[in-house]
Amino acid sequence: MLDQVLAGGYRGRIYPVNPRGGELRGLPVYRSVADIPETVDLAVISTPRTVVPEIVEECAKRGIKAIVVITQGFADASDADGPRLQEEMVRRLAGTGARLIGPNTIGVINLYERVNTSFIGFERVPADTAMICQSGIFLLAAAEFTCGLGLGVDIGNAADVDFNQALQTLGEDGRVRVINLHMEGIRDGRRFMAVAGRVSRHKPLLCLKTGRSEAGARAAGSHSGSLAGEDHVFSAAFRQCGVLRVRDVEEMHYLNKTFLTYPAIPGRRLAVITISGGAGIAAVDACADYGLEVAAFSRETKEKLAAVFPAWMEVGNPADIWPAGMSRGYLEVLELALDAALADPQVDAVLAVSPAYLKPEDDPRLDISAAVNRAAARRPDKPLAVWSFGAHRGELAARVEEAGRVVVYPSPERAVASLAALYRYYHEIKTAPVPVPDARPVPDSAPVERILAAARRAGRTDLHTEALEVLRACGIPVLPWQHAADAAQAVRAAEQLGYPVVMKIDSPEISHKSDVGGVMVDLADAAAVTAAYDEMMRTVKKRAPRAPISGVIIQPYRPGGVEIILGAKRDPSFGPVLVYGLGGIYTELFRDVSFRIAPITREEALQMIRETRSCRLLGGFRGRPAADLDALAELVVRLGQLVIACPEIAEMDINPLLVGPHGAVAVDARITIAGALTPA
Amino acid sequence: MLDQVLAGGYRGRIYPVNPRGGELRGLPVYRSVADIPETVDLAVISTPRTVVPEIVEECAKRGIKAIVVITQGFADASDADGPRLQEEMVRRLAGTGARLIGPNTIGVINLYERVNTSFIGFERVPADTAMICQSGIFLLAAAEFTCGLGLGVDIGNAADVDFNQALQTLGEDGRVRVINLHMEGIRDGRRFMAVAGRVSRHKPLLCLKTGRSEAGARAAGSHSGSLAGEDHVFSAAFRQCGVLRVRDVEEMHYLNKTFLTYPAIPGRRLAVITISGGAGIAAVDACADYGLEVAAFSRETKEKLAAVFPAWMEVGNPADIWPAGMSRGYLEVLELALDAALADPQVDAVLAVSPAYLKPEDDPRLDISAAVNRAAARRPDKPLAVWSFGAHRGELAARVEEAGRVVVYPSPERAVASLAALYRYYHEIKTAPVPVPDARPVPDSAPVERILAAARRAGRTDLHTEALEVLRACGIPVLPWQHAADAAQAVRAAEQLGYPVVMKIDSPEISHKSDVGGVMVDLADAAAVTAAYDEMMRTVKKRAPRAPISGVIIQPYRPGGVEIILGAKRDPSFGPVLVYGLGGIYTELFRDVSFRIAPITREEALQMIRETRSCRLLGGFRGRPAADLDALAELVVRLGQLVIACPEIAEMDINPLLVGPHGAVAVDARITIAGALTPA
Repeated sequence: MLDQVLAGGYRGRIYPVNPRGGELRGLPVYRSVADIPETVDLAVISTPRTVVPEIVEECAKRGIKAIVVITQGFADASDADGPRLQEEMVRRLAGTGARLIGPNTIGVINLYERVNTSFIGFERVPADTAMICQSGIFLLAAAEFTCGLGLGVDIGNAADVDFNQALQTLGEDGRVRVINLHMEGIRDGRRFMAVAGRVSRHKPLLCLKTGRSEAGARAAGSHSGSLAGEDHVFSAAFRQCGVLRVRDVEEMHYLNKTFLTYPAIPGRRLAVITISGGAGIAAVDACADYGLEVAAFSRETKEKLAAVFPAWMEVGNPADIWPAGMSRGYLEVLELALDAALADPQVDAVLAVSPAYLKPEDDPRLDISAAVNRAAARRPDKPLAVWSFGAHRGELAARVEEAGRVVVYPSPERAVASLAALYRYYHEIKTAPVPVPDARPVPDSAPVERILAAARRAGRTDLHTEALEVLRACGIPVLPWQHAADAAQAVRAAEQLGYPVVMKIDSPEISHKSDVGGVMVDLADAAAVTAAYDEMMRTVKKRAPRAPISGVIIQPYRPGGVEIILGAKRDPSFGPVLVYGLGGIYTELFRDVSFRIAPITREEALQMIRETRSCRLLGGFRGRPAADLDALAELVVRLGQLVIACPEIAEMDINPLLVGPHGAVAVDARITIAGALTPA
Repeated sequence: MLDQVLAGGYRGRIYPVNPRGGELRGLPVYRSVADIPETVDLAVISTPRTVVPEIVEECAKRGIKAIVVITQGFADASDADGPRLQEEMVRRLAGTGARLIGPNTIGVINLYERVNTSFIGFERVPADTAMICQSGIFLLAAAEFTCGLGLGVDIGNAADVDFNQALQTLGEDGRVRVINLHMEGIRDGRRFMAVAGRVSRHKPLLCLKTGRSEAGARAAGSHSGSLAGEDHVFSAAFRQCGVLRVRDVEEMHYLNKTFLTYPAIPGRRLAVITISGGAGIAAVDACADYGLEVAAFSRETKEKLAAVFPAWMEVGNPADIWPAGMSRGYLEVLELALDAALADPQVDAVLAVSPAYLKPEDDPRLDISAAVNRAAARRPDKPLAVWSFGAHRGELAARVEEAGRVVVYPSPERAVASLAALYRYYHEIKTAPVPVPDARPVPDSAPVERILAAARRAGRTDLHTEALEVLRACGIPVLPWQHAADAAQAVRAAEQLGYPVVMKIDSPEISHKSDVGGVMVDLADAAAVTAAYDEMMRTVKKRAPRAPISGVIIQPYRPGGVEIILGAKRDPSFGPVLVYGLGGIYTELFRDVSFRIAPITREEALQMIRETRSCRLLGGFRGRPAADLDALAELVVRLGQLVIACPEIAEMDINPLLVGPHGAVAVDARITIAGALTPA
């Protein structure tokens, strides 16, 4: 490690410590931390794990404020000693005022100050990017993943310093222009969202979230619970706080390069200036895939291009400049076309498509580096990107990118996806107001508390009709209902509510009522209700013989309207999460659901509704009347307030929530009280 | 161009031709083709377009059998002269026995024989890959796109030689091991499928299909027609004939490298040997994304690894070898772990995750090239892949890949997706029997022809009840129906069919009946039918005032069962295409549809059903009875036979087709007769 510190060119004082003493690389080795003649800024510990806690305490006592523990085998170990040693270390650190990074880390890298605590050699490529990671490879390979590095922290097991502290600090560092996260999981997701929400308004935050596939395995009892899956929750949280999620390290590389190169993008209209018509078609496909528009050239641009194009060729976008270049010189026509497109008020960005079949020095007629850089320099307000291809793309890219004005991408998809992310950051994240969730007082929670407390006293934690009462208590419209313990009571209830009615089995252990014959609709009169009661009892007892049955629920039959499922669950990282989706069997079939961390704003509730495909059903799809989206959004906001106000609600569903032109009404609901969580 | 031919090292005789004569690069220039002293093998024409047809004829007359026309501005031009000149050229070629590639091409490249007709310089990297393309960049950039090239054809405007001829020829060339296609469109899609279906059993066919985004714009009158969209049809066709579709040129590069390097893969169980736990997690995510399994190590493998792992660390897959490597030498542990994993009968392929932070020569402790190549050489039957990262990935990759045994990928996603494609090719394409569509006689088409002919004579091309008759005539079960011109007839029909019934408006101009109030269900008695008739007439006349109404259709009401839409349309490239999907409003909402080129086998029909997400509805989802998939598949096959047998059927839908445990029955149908095609 000392070798690496020295190789990095660190210019401060270094004190090796080892009980054996002696000399190392010309430096005297101290036998203990206590022997060091001054209070150092940073201690880096790499010893067998058993002695780490003691050394940490020693460093803290010596007044060292920053400690890095490289050693592995703590919470990351599969034996019992590891976690125990980590706890001990944290205990010894507590109250000393010192902060600790690690254990199980390569520590910190600061290429501005030439500091690094890595014991592994790596290419130090300075760039104004930062990385916070849970695996050292993301710092050591930063030259590739993030196009270089300014500041980096491997939080390792995060026994003390975690994502949130690191992000806060790097967010405030004026030198860093892009911050990257490699995240396997997070402890305090809400604090992360608060910090990231602030930082993302100043600089792009890119996150590679791994461990996504294990999430799906988590079993949960409720309908929406089983749909959630941690990974969707992370995506929702990232969206809410302005973090751009990247799919893989290749995307991470190109997005860093993109954000480091282009100061902004004015809109999404792309011009494509291409050496090949076929390549232009591929670029148009990419625009459709990633949400850029193919610009319509202004008359001026068309005229400028027509002046050099052969007579048999119409000017369009993509503009295939090869035939023109053949007669008038490729580089001349290219520069003319780039200037024309960049000057066009109907164009926001330009993609130049040009090859590198030979080494640029061997093929000066196709060496576009000077031409594109001149064009880019004249219009720094619009990104000029290049898709290049051929055996020598790398060499051409190096030439083109040298001035830091233009990025060369390896495919049109890569180029367009990168420009689309640029658009998203500058138009949807940076300029968006930090969301302020609905600040009206949460619904009066006292009656809700009373209902929940009564249920708990009665030893019940899985609530059905009481869930409807809870909703009503906090102002959510609920379809009237009555409980009936026999057929006669059912008829009486139906008469009070008005025919036609719906009958549903009432059992705390039956979640999917219709699966066991526990739902009958459109019962028109007393005879129908009586017959239905008998039939339902028979069927349900046969299909769910062990479920206790306390009778049925009678509700008015309201056909029409769209069935929505709206729920909430508690995520281990982010706490209360709202789940919204199409109801009925289609929820599971198409997983057409959206998630948000509660509480949310009305605008976020509308976004949540709109990002499902089933949203079209609400907008007057195929002749249906348009639903009252405002009422629906209001209700989603309200549910968020409820689960924030009542932490004892572990999970809940409104299923179905009936949404129509005149509002939304809860038909059925379920609440699970904390302490009775279904097995995870 | 002459320069390029010479630079390519061609060793045959070359005869430049130009009316001015003289000398070029030391070769005498002939004034006309007729002057050349022998019959040459290949003529390459690059002159102004106006004289091309004449020269083509001259060449053919001189006995030249192969002609390449480089010149642009034919069918590719936007003026009227271009297409006219191309037609003239084809006319002059016809009957001469000569074949022509182009125009608007860079021609052919054969690096085995050092022949190329390109006038553009490019790096000639020989490899046993072939490329057939519609844009010259795919040949000139082959060093990147396909990792080199053996044989390549740019078919250009394909005035004569097209995809199918080129594919046939390259498919038969024993030197070529992977064939790539860059396809913008295809004229004879059925012939392509036949050729590709044969070739794909011998060597992988990879296709980059561009122009996919324009397809969606095609409007079509019928329900399934509007959903089709050319691009889905291409995907279906590729699947049916064993072509692997690649998303972009980056994927094309890595799949070529993968197929050139690995002879096969025995299964889908992957072992991950990693320098970093965090990187291992990313690899597991990739497996979930691309359909590989994370192998469970055998006891032997676990014991071999446990022997070198530290005591606090459990052995798992991914196996994080870093702690073991720290104490016992990284390269030693790596090779041991690779050998153990490759020898494990529960492992089919291995991914080694290892960095390149420094130049391999500067960091011999992490230079894995020798170790992985030794391990790979010992087990050539199982792919050993590497994910590497860091500033010097390129240099490490070059060292590792030199022996041609191991591929180094830039991300775990890239590695796993490539191995998954390898699996798909060797287990689902190469070994699959060439499908032989159901060979039973097509349903007796005479009665069908009679119905269609009668409708045509009556001037009707958009058929509704006659469509049901057609289905019945070819053995497809149809729900009984009766037409009724007034309320009294409707009651009589209902009494004959049996209550409850469904009433539907009968109008040739109303496709989406329920959108205009033209469907009423569950009519229980004569009073209900009479009331429904009056209400329907009122509503429909209000909502569709201009549609001619000939009365209503009465059918028995059959609730339950799953509503499916099954249709056929004619694709301009592939002809009759079958469309299958979930019926009702969800078809449009979720676009949960699958396509196949007709005719199809029973197995293909089942695949088609199974690849929709709604297929779960048919399998006994949430307590519903499982549907009769065999009957459904049989019906899909039958519809394919029908549209093949009756070319005058331009488009048809069965919507809905009701599928239940006792079979499938068509409820409603529509046929459009050719000649009355809805405007494209």
